[in-house]
Amino acid sequence: MKRIIIKNVLLDGEEKNILIEGNIIKKISCCETVYDDTTTKAAKIIEAKGKAVIPGLINMHTHSAMTLMRGIYEDAKLNEWLSYIWKVEPRLDEEMIYWGTRLACLEMLKSGTTTFNDQYWMTDTAVKAIAEMGLRSMNSYVFLDMNDTSKDEYLKEECLKVYEKSASWSGLNKFTVAVHAPYSVSGSLMLWANDFAVKNNLLLHIHLSETAKEQEDSFRLHKLSPTGYLESLGMLSPKVLAAHCVWMSEKDIELLALHDVKIVHNINSNLKLASGYKFKYKEFKDAGLTVTLGTDGCASSNNLDMLEAMKTAALVQKAWREDPTVMPLNELMDMATVNGAKALDLDCGSIEEGKLADMVLIDIDNYAFTPNYNFLANLIYSANSSCVDTVICNGDIVMENRHVNGEEEILENVRRIYGRLNI
Amino acid sequence: MKRIIIKNVLLDGEEKNILIEGNIIKKISCCETVYDDTTTKAAKIIEAKGKAVIPGLINMHTHSAMTLMRGIYEDAKLNEWLSYIWKVEPRLDEEMIYWGTRLACLEMLKSGTTTFNDQYWMTDTAVKAIAEMGLRSMNSYVFLDMNDTSKDEYLKEECLKVYEKSASWSGLNKFTVAVHAPYSVSGSLMLWANDFAVKNNLLLHIHLSETAKEQEDSFRLHKLSPTGYLESLGMLSPKVLAAHCVWMSEKDIELLALHDVKIVHNINSNLKLASGYKFKYKEFKDAGLTVTLGTDGCASSNNLDMLEAMKTAALVQKAWREDPTVMPLNELMDMATVNGAKALDLDCGSIEEGKLADMVLIDIDNYAFTPNYNFLANLIYSANSSCVDTVICNGDIVMENRHVNGEEEILENVRRIYGRLNI
Repeated sequence: MKRIIIKNVLLDGEEKNILIEGNIIKKISCCETVYDDTTTKAAKIIEAKGKAVIPGLINMHTHSAMTLMRGIYEDAKLNEWLSYIWKVEPRLDEEMIYWGTRLACLEMLKSGTTTFNDQYWMTDTAVKAIAEMGLRSMNSYVFLDMNDTSKDEYLKEECLKVYEKSASWSGLNKFTVAVHAPYSVSGSLMLWANDFAVKNNLLLHIHLSETAKEQEDSFRLHKLSPTGYLESLGMLSPKVLAAHCVWMSEKDIELLALHDVKIVHNINSNLKLASGYKFKYKEFKDAGLTVTLGTDGCASSNNLDMLEAMKTAALVQKAWREDPTVMPLNELMDMATVNGAKALDLDCGSIEEGKLADMVLIDIDNYAFTPNYNFLANLIYSANSSCVDTVICNGDIVMENRHVNGEEEILENVRRIYGRLNI
Repeated sequence: MKRIIIKNVLLDGEEKNILIEGNIIKKISCCETVYDDTTTKAAKIIEAKGKAVIPGLINMHTHSAMTLMRGIYEDAKLNEWLSYIWKVEPRLDEEMIYWGTRLACLEMLKSGTTTFNDQYWMTDTAVKAIAEMGLRSMNSYVFLDMNDTSKDEYLKEECLKVYEKSASWSGLNKFTVAVHAPYSVSGSLMLWANDFAVKNNLLLHIHLSETAKEQEDSFRLHKLSPTGYLESLGMLSPKVLAAHCVWMSEKDIELLALHDVKIVHNINSNLKLASGYKFKYKEFKDAGLTVTLGTDGCASSNNLDMLEAMKTAALVQKAWREDPTVMPLNELMDMATVNGAKALDLDCGSIEEGKLADMVLIDIDNYAFTPNYNFLANLIYSANSSCVDTVICNGDIVMENRHVNGEEEILENVRRIYGRLNI
C-alpha cells in the first residue's frame, strides 16, 4: 500500500506528522512520533518544516476548458460578451477541450484546488484530461436547448451515451447532470434531465438567478422567480448544486432551504460581468443552507484561483453589508472546503483521520506570512496562490515543490492550438 | 556610466530592446539592434525573451511599517479595529519601524511597485530602510493631534527637525507633509502644516472622506463636508494627495476638480473595513481629476499588492455601476502608473525614451498568461504578483529573477522583533 509521511507540518498552529495510507489520512500525531520500519520503508517522506497544511480546496462551479478563452473579450456589456462567447464556443474541438481542461487542472493544482464541479462540453474527453492530472471532479452532461425542443431527443441520447461511458471513469471523476439554466432549457427537457438525475441518484448542476434580467424574464414568462419555477417543476432537492444565486428573495431562500439546495457563490464572475454583488450570505446561512464557493470559467473570471475567490467574497460581503464582521475567516475556509465536500457528498474537505487524503502544503517562509499572527488571515488576505507548494489528491502527490508533471507540455500544446478559435 | 540592455522584451505586444543609461531610458529599439562595443562592454545584459515589460507600479497611499500588524485584528468592527491599532502603535520603536519598512519594500518589489507614497512614524528611520532597498518614495512627517492643541508646538518642532534631516536623503526619497485627516487634526495645526507645505513647495498627503461617520461629523461640526471644510481653510491645491475619497458629493467633486486635487483609491482597505465602496470613478474622471491607486497599510488591507488593488478596483466598480465597461484595462494601468507619476510630479510611469528607468519584467511563460490574447487582461485579472520577475528602479536592478538582496535577513529580523508589539 502506498504511504506518505508528512513531517513537522503546521496544522491549526501546531507541528504535526501526518501519515497517509492509500487514499486515506491514517494518523495525525505529534511530530516526535516514531514510526516502525515497515511504515517508513514503504513511505515517501515529505519534510514540511516551514509549511502549513490545509484541506484541498473545492471549486464548486467552473467550465474548465474555457481557459482557452481567457481574456478574449474584455470590458464589454454582458449581452455582447455572451454573444461573442457563444459565437466562439462551437469552434472548440476535442483536442482543444482536452488541452484546455488540462490547462485548467494545472491552474487549479497550482492554486490549491483538488476537487472541482465542472460543467462543459465533450465530457468524456474532459474526464480523460482530468484523470491524467489526478484531480477529483464532478463532470456533467450539459442540457442547453435555448427552448428549441427539436434538439431534445438528440441531447437525451447524447446524455445516455456519456452516462454509459462514465461507468469506465475512475472513482475520482463522477458523472452529474447539468441543466444550463431555467431560462435556457425548455421545461420538458429540464423535467427529463431531472428525472434522469433522480433515477440514477446523480447531482444536478444548474445556473440559478445569476442576473436581474433572468429574474424579470422568469416573472414575465412563468409568474414565478427562477427558484419558484424550478420548485413548481419539482426540481429542487438536496442534490441540486445551484450556481450564482445572486437575485434571491426571502421566499426563494425559504424554498431553497426547504429542499436543502446547495448554493455556489461565484463572486469574481458576478462582479466582472456586473451581474450583481448583493449575495445574501447571511440569509442563506441563517436559513441553514450549505454555501460553497466557485470561480466560474476563465472566460468570465479569468482564473480558477480559489484563494482569490475567498478574498473577494469576504471583502465584497463586508462592504455591501457595511459590517466587517460578516463572513469571518473560519467560515470562508469552510465555504472553500468542507461545505463543498458536503454538497458533493465526498468524505474530504478537512484534515482528520479517516478522511480522504486531499490536502495542500502552504509555504509560509515568505513575506506574505511574516509576521504570522493569524495564518488564515495571511493565507486569504495577504498571500496569493504562489504560496501553494505541494498538493496531494486521493493520496497521490499531484504537485510537489510547485512542479506538476507535464506542465511545459500543456502550455506548449495550448499555444499550438488556441489560434483555431480565431479570436 | 551604468548601463543595462534588456533584450527581446515584449513592450505593447512587440519584442524590443531597451537601453538604460544611468537612471534614464535611453533608447527603445527593435530587437535586431546592434550596439557598439563601448555600450555592450559596459552594460549588464538581461535576456528577456518570454517576458514583458511594464512601468514600475506606483502605490499612492500606504503606511509601510504596518506590515508588522498584518492580520492582528481580523473580522472586527471599524471602531474596535481602530482602537486596537491605536493601542498597539505606540509600542513601535525605531528598530521595528526599520525592519517593518524593509519588509514593506520587499513586498512592494516582489509585487512590482517601484514608487510609493508613505505616511507613517519615525520618518527618518523609514527612509533609511527604503534607501537601502532602492525604491522611490514620498515620506511624510505626519500631523495627528486628535484636536488636542497642547501637543502642537512639539509636533511642529518635530516636523522641522525631520524636514532638515531630509536634506540628506537621496534624490529617490522626498519629504512630504501629512495631515492625518480633517477630523483628527485641529484646524490651526492643519493651517500651519499647509502653510509649511506651500512655503516649501511640498506635497500634502491626507486621508479624506474615508467613512460615512467622518462625513456626518464634519457636517455637524463645520456645517461642511470634509472637502468643503478643507476648501474653507484654503487647503485644496494640485499638491494635495487625498486618500480614499469614498464619500463625495457632486459639490465636493467640483471643489476637488477646481483645485486639481489628486485622488487615491484604496479599494481593498475600504472594502475590508466596510468604509464604503461606491467610489465615484466616472465622476472623478469626467471632472478631469487625476485618479490613482493605493493599497493602504497592511493592518487594514493585509498586503501591498498593486496588481490585486487594480483587479479589485475594476471588479467592484463594474459591479456597483452595473456596467462591465467602466474602468477598462488601459485606464487601470494608467491609475497604477502614469497617473501616480503625474500626482507626484515624477518623470516615470511609462516606458518611453527619456523617462526615468523604473520598470518591471513580467514572466509570461506560465499558465496565467496562456493563451495570451490580451496581456493586460492576463496581468490584472488572471495572474498574481508572482509573475513579477525583475524590477528596475532609477536604473538599478533591485530585484532579479525574484531575488531581492537581503530578503532572508528581513524575514528573520521581523520574526525576531514583532513579538514586542505584544499582540
